[in-house]
Amino acid sequence: MTRTPDSAVRTYIDQHRDAFLDDLAAWLRIPSVSADPGRAGEVRRSAEWLAEKLRETGFPVSEVWETAPGGLPAVYAEWPSGDPQAPTVLVYGHHDVQPAALEDGWDTEPFEPAVVDGRMYGRGAADDKGQVFFHTLGVRAHLAATGRTAPAVNLKLLVEGEEESGSPHFADLVRRHADRLACDTVIVSDTGMWAADTPTVCTGMRGLADCQIDLFGPAQDIHSGSFGGAVPNPATEAARLAAALHDDDRRVAVPGFYDGVEELTERERELFAELPFDEKEWLGVARSQGTLGEAGYTTLERIWARPTAEVNGIWGGYTGPGGKTIVPSSAHLKLSFRLVVGQDVEKVREAVRDWVADRLPDGIRHEIVFPGATRPCLTPLDHPALQSVVRSMGRAFGQEIRYTREGGSGPAADLQDVLGVPVLFLGISVPSDGWHSVNEKVELDLLLKGVETSAYLWGDLAERWPAGARDR
Amino acid sequence: MTRTPDSAVRTYIDQHRDAFLDDLAAWLRIPSVSADPGRAGEVRRSAEWLAEKLRETGFPVSEVWETAPGGLPAVYAEWPSGDPQAPTVLVYGHHDVQPAALEDGWDTEPFEPAVVDGRMYGRGAADDKGQVFFHTLGVRAHLAATGRTAPAVNLKLLVEGEEESGSPHFADLVRRHADRLACDTVIVSDTGMWAADTPTVCTGMRGLADCQIDLFGPAQDIHSGSFGGAVPNPATEAARLAAALHDDDRRVAVPGFYDGVEELTERERELFAELPFDEKEWLGVARSQGTLGEAGYTTLERIWARPTAEVNGIWGGYTGPGGKTIVPSSAHLKLSFRLVVGQDVEKVREAVRDWVADRLPDGIRHEIVFPGATRPCLTPLDHPALQSVVRSMGRAFGQEIRYTREGGSGPAADLQDVLGVPVLFLGISVPSDGWHSVNEKVELDLLLKGVETSAYLWGDLAERWPAGARDR
Repeated sequence: MTRTPDSAVRTYIDQHRDAFLDDLAAWLRIPSVSADPGRAGEVRRSAEWLAEKLRETGFPVSEVWETAPGGLPAVYAEWPSGDPQAPTVLVYGHHDVQPAALEDGWDTEPFEPAVVDGRMYGRGAADDKGQVFFHTLGVRAHLAATGRTAPAVNLKLLVEGEEESGSPHFADLVRRHADRLACDTVIVSDTGMWAADTPTVCTGMRGLADCQIDLFGPAQDIHSGSFGGAVPNPATEAARLAAALHDDDRRVAVPGFYDGVEELTERERELFAELPFDEKEWLGVARSQGTLGEAGYTTLERIWARPTAEVNGIWGGYTGPGGKTIVPSSAHLKLSFRLVVGQDVEKVREAVRDWVADRLPDGIRHEIVFPGATRPCLTPLDHPALQSVVRSMGRAFGQEIRYTREGGSGPAADLQDVLGVPVLFLGISVPSDGWHSVNEKVELDLLLKGVETSAYLWGDLAERWPAGARDR
Repeated sequence: MTRTPDSAVRTYIDQHRDAFLDDLAAWLRIPSVSADPGRAGEVRRSAEWLAEKLRETGFPVSEVWETAPGGLPAVYAEWPSGDPQAPTVLVYGHHDVQPAALEDGWDTEPFEPAVVDGRMYGRGAADDKGQVFFHTLGVRAHLAATGRTAPAVNLKLLVEGEEESGSPHFADLVRRHADRLACDTVIVSDTGMWAADTPTVCTGMRGLADCQIDLFGPAQDIHSGSFGGAVPNPATEAARLAAALHDDDRRVAVPGFYDGVEELTERERELFAELPFDEKEWLGVARSQGTLGEAGYTTLERIWARPTAEVNGIWGGYTGPGGKTIVPSSAHLKLSFRLVVGQDVEKVREAVRDWVADRLPDGIRHEIVFPGATRPCLTPLDHPALQSVVRSMGRAFGQEIRYTREGGSGPAADLQDVLGVPVLFLGISVPSDGWHSVNEKVELDLLLKGVETSAYLWGDLAERWPAGARDR
């Protein structure tokens, strides 16, 4: 039994927590805002700072990786186990942050971290520098408590610098370095938990396919008195398309859309239902005045496990003050589809393409483009690596760990697709942490639970999921 | 038999046509663009020029009427018959014009009239100075040919200066002067004919009611991954409303919308069908790639005689380049309804209000405003004044006069409503005249047919529709 002794881990963390927090604060002072071209130098400085810190931590390989000309750098580090049986784990995170300025309404300077009441405030504290950084103290606690000189797994880290800008070069970066990134599983530390008192592990994210549909009617706006009611109106047809996206049960009505969808198991539905979900509170966060969605599913099932279709934008005709009695010349729709495991992006696109073409009347010409797509990812509840994460979190938190999913979509899917391995999510952030908002913070006790989880995880994984178990 | 001798009328017109065309050209040189605040002085100069010209013509009363502070003046003139049996006729037109500049693509200066190949080119030649002006030579030809010193009818003229700016003060002006404008019928000379070789008289216009519907969902745009598919989306709901405006037969699906609608008679449908309608040609003018409308009706019936609903504008959510995965906070619709005789504006508004409220799900708040309305007008085919117009045109053109309607809506309805009399339409313009476009022109032979029609009309009306006939 190579299980890392919990008390040794905790003692090591206690001894090193102040230095760890000082280091994190130093990193948060670097305003690595990837969306701001004027701060490209700061993103680079953040990458170099992290690469150096990972070398200090003990990673024998630590490099700054260029993405593309004009792109922003990622950091890659590697620490081989030395054990031929050891699994290889790739940790994913990002070192760039959202824009922030005191004038936006922050109580403290966003790039001058402040510790108040057990919380560290600062842009990137939770999203995502804090969550990347807990792995540094985690691996050292793992070594200290086990007496090892190298981690029990082959540990790799990939920390990108363009996540907050939509990861434009990430898939390409992963493809170019696929052999160095080769691993048995990916651990994404860029998500959150249900609540501070309800620790959870996320088991998957939905995929995404978006499209723009442009409809063209008369060659110019024409008089609705002279022609209205006798020629097709592209604004009406855009509305009829958008309206036909859902039936009266709010199921997506595009034929073939649900083909292959992996239905929730009874066990998964039970696990969702066990979460202390307060719909009124959730509506407060959503800032919505009501719920509405696919009949037969709960709100959590709808946002986490069901494919959906959304109108992100619609426009056509006159939109200024007063009225203008026209039949507009054109109208436009931006739609996006959240996808779940079992759906195929290409088949969904084909279904949407056919559906649009079938529904438009003569006299309306159309164009449709699908700018991008992200595939869904989902790890089965009984996957041994997932169970290692759950056990390690359970030891750190001293509580049962529950399961969530993420309704959004992320670059994690690129790792899954290119590297062909399952993706796990280990995040310790909570909904009040203020991602992309003012007064972003991380709860220090949760941050240290992240350190502790990381310290237990590598030993657990190596023991429960050695080469023999992986191959079976 | 007081019928004006046709040869005497034609001789008089021939003798005076050059001076008449010179006068019209002088008026067209005044750039009375009501939409351009910098040309308010020119609109006033146009009104004064016309008032003076009407005095020269013989009208004993000719006045410039102010509309409102900052508004643009109208011209009012009056020439009593002296015969107590005589009907009173109010001619309506406008002396303001659409903007125009050589740079827009005109072949000649828009405010320097040019006569080429029997056409006079210039802004306002057809819309509407030429069509107002033919009545001046018309009434003089009527007097010359009959030997009268005053017209056979009590002739009134109201020529507004804000028609091209939406007649913002017109209804108020008519209400304020209702007793001086009192009449038995209104003759609107601001429309057109089917074609140069198919002279027609228009018997009515559709009414108009427009509205804006604003839908509000989440208090701000929210993430479609975290919330999409579980909360109502105002863009989807706006689309569902717009889509539900029409059923699959493209009938308006707002309950109660058709209440009271006066159906076309078989005779009216036959008259429409007799017109040499070429759908391909019409589509070319509409610049549309196809026809679409209420099942069971022809294109002409749809645009002239059926009430319709049109989406003039729709917008909500993200409309910029690329994608943005949001559930939008709000969405908006601009709708307009063309109305026919029998429909009541207030009842239509009530029906739309109820329909919107009934269709929206919980969680979507809405507001609806109805900025304005114009009532429909329609003169029965057997109305004696309409028959006078048809007979007079028939004498001028030497052809059978057919019947059209106008799909649009106009301030004529204010005259109908305030004065409580039928409105007739006497226009000699043809579709190629370029209203609101470049190279506007009037066909001189048609313009002189207008003069001739006007010369015959007053005698015909006085004879066939004297006080006794009006009272029956």
